[in-house]
Amino acid sequence: MTYCLGILTHSGLVMAADSRSNAGVDYISTQQKLFDLSLPGDRVIVICTSGNLSVTQSTMALVRRDIKIQAEVNIHNIPTMHEVVRYLGAKLRYVLAQDQEWLRRDGIDAGCNFLVGGQVRGDDEPSLHLVYPQGNAIQASKETPFLQIGEAKYGKPILDRVLTMQTPIEDAAKCALLSIDSTMKSNISVGPPINLILYRGGTLKIEHHLSLKRNSTYLAKLRQEWEQELKVAFDRVSPIEWDVWEQD
Amino acid sequence: MTYCLGILTHSGLVMAADSRSNAGVDYISTQQKLFDLSLPGDRVIVICTSGNLSVTQSTMALVRRDIKIQAEVNIHNIPTMHEVVRYLGAKLRYVLAQDQEWLRRDGIDAGCNFLVGGQVRGDDEPSLHLVYPQGNAIQASKETPFLQIGEAKYGKPILDRVLTMQTPIEDAAKCALLSIDSTMKSNISVGPPINLILYRGGTLKIEHHLSLKRNSTYLAKLRQEWEQELKVAFDRVSPIEWDVWEQD
Repeated sequence: MTYCLGILTHSGLVMAADSRSNAGVDYISTQQKLFDLSLPGDRVIVICTSGNLSVTQSTMALVRRDIKIQAEVNIHNIPTMHEVVRYLGAKLRYVLAQDQEWLRRDGIDAGCNFLVGGQVRGDDEPSLHLVYPQGNAIQASKETPFLQIGEAKYGKPILDRVLTMQTPIEDAAKCALLSIDSTMKSNISVGPPINLILYRGGTLKIEHHLSLKRNSTYLAKLRQEWEQELKVAFDRVSPIEWDVWEQD
Repeated sequence: MTYCLGILTHSGLVMAADSRSNAGVDYISTQQKLFDLSLPGDRVIVICTSGNLSVTQSTMALVRRDIKIQAEVNIHNIPTMHEVVRYLGAKLRYVLAQDQEWLRRDGIDAGCNFLVGGQVRGDDEPSLHLVYPQGNAIQASKETPFLQIGEAKYGKPILDRVLTMQTPIEDAAKCALLSIDSTMKSNISVGPPINLILYRGGTLKIEHHLSLKRNSTYLAKLRQEWEQELKVAFDRVSPIEWDVWEQD
């Protein structure tokens, strides 16, 4: 499995992904799932991928080739984020048109999702999008400051409780790491390295790019602190008052 | 959807369930999913259900009828929890033998799960079991002090972080309520009333039975306290030290 998330707040954008890939429990490997295709000063574009690895890799290969050969339309010259997202959906559909039927015959799911976040010079603010397996897309809005793909459920409660559009971008980054850590704790098919980028809106340049490996002291420290603080929080919540509550 | 969980610690057993039933988003109703079939002084038996409502209701109807007509084998005279669980699996299979093929023809999932917890006089300690849709079962062990059925993922992180076999039973009950509350917050298809029972091992009598309704002041208070304490916990976790961590 995979877990990727994007968070969009008033101050910027955070995107993060785990790196575990598995084809059954006996074939576990590490795969990059967060790709920085930015052109600093002109545009920030970050893509996270989940789902069928051959489909996402083929799609990303086409995207990169267009950049390399400076195709007439490529991610470095498309004028808006909206069109970047449509372009990625079109590349995905091109791959699916070749492969999907072959996979379907053997009952293999070709499904995959992409998160696309960033800002192109001229865009008023950063935006965050989710491309569906069919190539269509939705966009994060003020009501939903985050989007997730892959194994999203374990890591959602902390996002639901902590995040708003007003959350400072550094806190959003910490929240993203804790959301991924919660997922790794509950599901063995999500694992390090964790990649995370922080982009402050309007700067057209990624401010930070973390890559926390399995044996990262910081990841261990973060987990330990969070477990300890969660237990304190749990203890501080009032106990059940059985006599009163049972009358309710 | 549904979310039910059972927690087994050294001091006893907690079982809890939400009560929302839905057949699509426009047909939401309330259904009891936690059933107390105890015979105080002789046995405590609590069953929680998830999945296809017609199958679980039919199964529970058969179980109750056997008690009512004092059938030769019924839940009030079966000598061990292990056999209680086998009996429930057999009733489920009886229902499936009648209905499953009819449901399958129309692509309807007959799948359902049961949690069965309790203690029969003569058992050394309480036990907790999960009956699969095929009628077979597993049992909670020291390594896994909880079992969940239904929409289990959102509520798992808090259980993973807080529970051990040493957790006092009152804390386990609080943890169960917070686990269900986390699920309700993240998934609209899980909802109140929340039913919860607390059983202290060896007493052969349920000690507490809570039923928290939608407008319960206690549920609101618990959620508010937990959200507040979680935010405090989040703030107390060290911020990301970008300069150091990016070198890692």
